[in-house]
Amino acid sequence: MEVVPMRHMKGGSGDTSYATNSLLQREAINKMKTVIEEAITNLCKTNYPTTLAIADLGCSSGPNSLYLVSQIIQVVERISEHESPEYQVFLNDLPTNDFNTIFKFLPSFQQEMKKLMGIGPCLVSAVPGSFYGRLFPKNSLHFVHSSSSIHWLSQVPDRLERADSSLTSVYKAYYDQFQKDFCSFLKGRSEELVAGGRMVLTFLGRNNEDPFKRESTYALELLALALSQLVSEGFIEEEKVKSFNFPMYAASPTEVKLEIEKEGSFRINRLELTEIDWNASKQESDQVDDDDAVKSSGYSMAKCVRAGIEPFLVGHFGQEIMDELFSRYREIITAHMSKEKKPTLDYLILSLTKKD
Amino acid sequence: MEVVPMRHMKGGSGDTSYATNSLLQREAINKMKTVIEEAITNLCKTNYPTTLAIADLGCSSGPNSLYLVSQIIQVVERISEHESPEYQVFLNDLPTNDFNTIFKFLPSFQQEMKKLMGIGPCLVSAVPGSFYGRLFPKNSLHFVHSSSSIHWLSQVPDRLERADSSLTSVYKAYYDQFQKDFCSFLKGRSEELVAGGRMVLTFLGRNNEDPFKRESTYALELLALALSQLVSEGFIEEEKVKSFNFPMYAASPTEVKLEIEKEGSFRINRLELTEIDWNASKQESDQVDDDDAVKSSGYSMAKCVRAGIEPFLVGHFGQEIMDELFSRYREIITAHMSKEKKPTLDYLILSLTKKD
Repeated sequence: MEVVPMRHMKGGSGDTSYATNSLLQREAINKMKTVIEEAITNLCKTNYPTTLAIADLGCSSGPNSLYLVSQIIQVVERISEHESPEYQVFLNDLPTNDFNTIFKFLPSFQQEMKKLMGIGPCLVSAVPGSFYGRLFPKNSLHFVHSSSSIHWLSQVPDRLERADSSLTSVYKAYYDQFQKDFCSFLKGRSEELVAGGRMVLTFLGRNNEDPFKRESTYALELLALALSQLVSEGFIEEEKVKSFNFPMYAASPTEVKLEIEKEGSFRINRLELTEIDWNASKQESDQVDDDDAVKSSGYSMAKCVRAGIEPFLVGHFGQEIMDELFSRYREIITAHMSKEKKPTLDYLILSLTKKD
Repeated sequence: MEVVPMRHMKGGSGDTSYATNSLLQREAINKMKTVIEEAITNLCKTNYPTTLAIADLGCSSGPNSLYLVSQIIQVVERISEHESPEYQVFLNDLPTNDFNTIFKFLPSFQQEMKKLMGIGPCLVSAVPGSFYGRLFPKNSLHFVHSSSSIHWLSQVPDRLERADSSLTSVYKAYYDQFQKDFCSFLKGRSEELVAGGRMVLTFLGRNNEDPFKRESTYALELLALALSQLVSEGFIEEEKVKSFNFPMYAASPTEVKLEIEKEGSFRINRLELTEIDWNASKQESDQVDDDDAVKSSGYSMAKCVRAGIEPFLVGHFGQEIMDELFSRYREIITAHMSKEKKPTLDYLILSLTKKD
C-alpha cells in the first residue's frame, strides 16, 4: 500500500513544531482518560502479564507520546493488586516522523517514572511504519492506543482523479478509502493483540450521518478560505488549490461500527462522540483579557493546526507561502471564534476488546 | 549509572558522518559472518520460535545496522527447514543516536527483504538506552549481536582524577570500569535472553596480556600525536589535552573470559582475536596507483576514525579545531601506513550461549 510520504507531524521543537503545539491533541487525550482507565482496569482483571506491552500508534514527535504512557502506567499502578509488571512501550509513527526528538525526553522521563512510582523497568522503543500494515509480532500486545491519528488515510483516494468532481462521487471515493484503511487497521491489530487485549482509539469524526454537513472539519474549511484569499490575490494559482486533497476522513459513528462488525475480531465496549473546544489550544499564559483572549485563542488554534498539517501543504504549495498562509488563517480563525459562541471539533472515542 | 552524553556516532549522512564512513566496522562484521552463521544454525536447531527476536546493540546510525540484520535473516532462511518465522528486530543505541537516519532507509529495506526472500513481516524497532542497563523484557530475545560497541565504557573511570597519573593506576582504574560495565552488560542480557539464546559480540581488544603494549589502539595513539602537534603550535592548551580521556577499554581475551565466568550465566562457544586491516577503510573507487593508494587509505582511515569519535572530541575541544585536527591526523596516518607493511586493529570475537 502506498503511503503519502508527507504524512507526518512537523518535527523538532521550534515555535511552529508539533512538539510545542499539540495542546488540542492533549485535550483529546484528557477527554478519554476515563475510557482508558476503564479499559485498563478490565484488562488487568482478566489478564495480568509479567510484562505489559503497550503500543501508541501515531505517536508523533511531541511530549504527548510520553505523557500518555505515564497516564496509562499510573492507572495500572493504582488499580493493580499484583506486583508491578515490567512495562514494554512501543511508540509508532511513520518512518519520516522525528523520533530523535522523542528520544531526547526519554532519559528524564524514565528517571521520573522510577522515582515517582518505584516501578521496575519501563522499556520504551520506537516502531517506524504505517499502522495500516503489520507492526508487531502475533499475540504480543496487551493494550493499543491511538489518539488523533486514524482520521489520516493511507493515501488520497486513487479514484479521486478519475471521479467526476460532484460532491457525491468525491465522498464515495473517500468513504471507500476509509473502509479499506480502517479494515486493514483492525486486521493488523487483531493479529497483534492477545485474546482479551484492549484498544482505545480517538480520532476526528462526524456528529451526523450526512457527509455534506461539514461542521466537524470546519477548521480545515477555514484553511480552504485562507487558500482562496491567496488565489484571489495572485499568490497561488487556482489550479494548484483545486488539485490539492487532504488524505483525511472524518467518519460517523455508524460508519465506524459497520467496519468493526464486518471485520469481526473486536467487541465494542464504547463508541462515543465528544466535542473538543477550540479554546483547548490556548496556553494559560496567553490569556490577558476577553478580546485578547479570543485573539490568542485564534493564534494558538492556528498554530495547532499548522503543526499538524504543514508538512502536507509544503509538499504541494512550497515552503515560501506558509507564513503568509497561516497569517491569513489566524485572522480568519480569530474572526470566526469571536462570532461563534463555542467552536468545536468532533472526536470519536472507541473502546474495543479483542475477542477470544 | 552515568552515561557520557557524547557517546554516540556522528549523525546524518554527510561526508564526515558515521553513516558514510563505517567501512572498517563493516569489515569487522564480515570477519565474524561465519561465527554468526554457526550461532544461528545452532540456535535454530534447538529452539525454533514462530517469532525470532533479534537485537543489535550499539547499532549507530549507518547502513551497517540494516546490513547486519539482512545477513542474519539470510542465514536463518538458508538453513531453516521450517516455515519462515516472523522477524522482530530491535536496533539499540543511546537516546542521542540519530535514529531518524536509519528509519529513512527502512521502507526500501523492508521492501527488498520481502522481494528477495518472500519472507513474512520483518518488524523493526528502535530501542534507545544504554546497554549497560536493562533494555528488553525478561526472556524475550533469541539472538543478540553487538559490533564495535562494547569497547566504549559507560563513563571515564570515576577514580581517574583521584588516581596518581602513573600508567599502572590509570590502567587499574580503566580495568575496574571495564569489569563493572562488562558485568552489567552480561547481567542485563542474561535476563533478556531465553534459555539457549545466543550472543555474538565483536569489539576492540588487545592481542596480549600486557596492558602497556598498545598496538591495538595505535590509531588513537596517532590521534594523540596530532593533538600534541596542535599543542606545540599553540592551537590547543596542553592542560586541555592532559585532561582528556576516552571512555574506551581494549580488553584481552583473558580479561573477557574472567568476567564471563564470574557472572556465570553464559557458556563460551568461541573467544577469538582477529586482525582488521586498516586498508579495509578504503573504498574501491579510491584506488589509483600505489602511492595514491596509501594516501587515500590514510584519508579513508582518518575519516573512519573521525566518524566514530568526533562527538567525544567536540565536547572537550570544540568544533572549530576539528578540521585542523583531522587534517594533521590524516597526514600522520598516511606517513605511518607507508612505513608499516600492514597496520591492523585487533578485534575480539565472542560467541556465547545463555545457560538453561
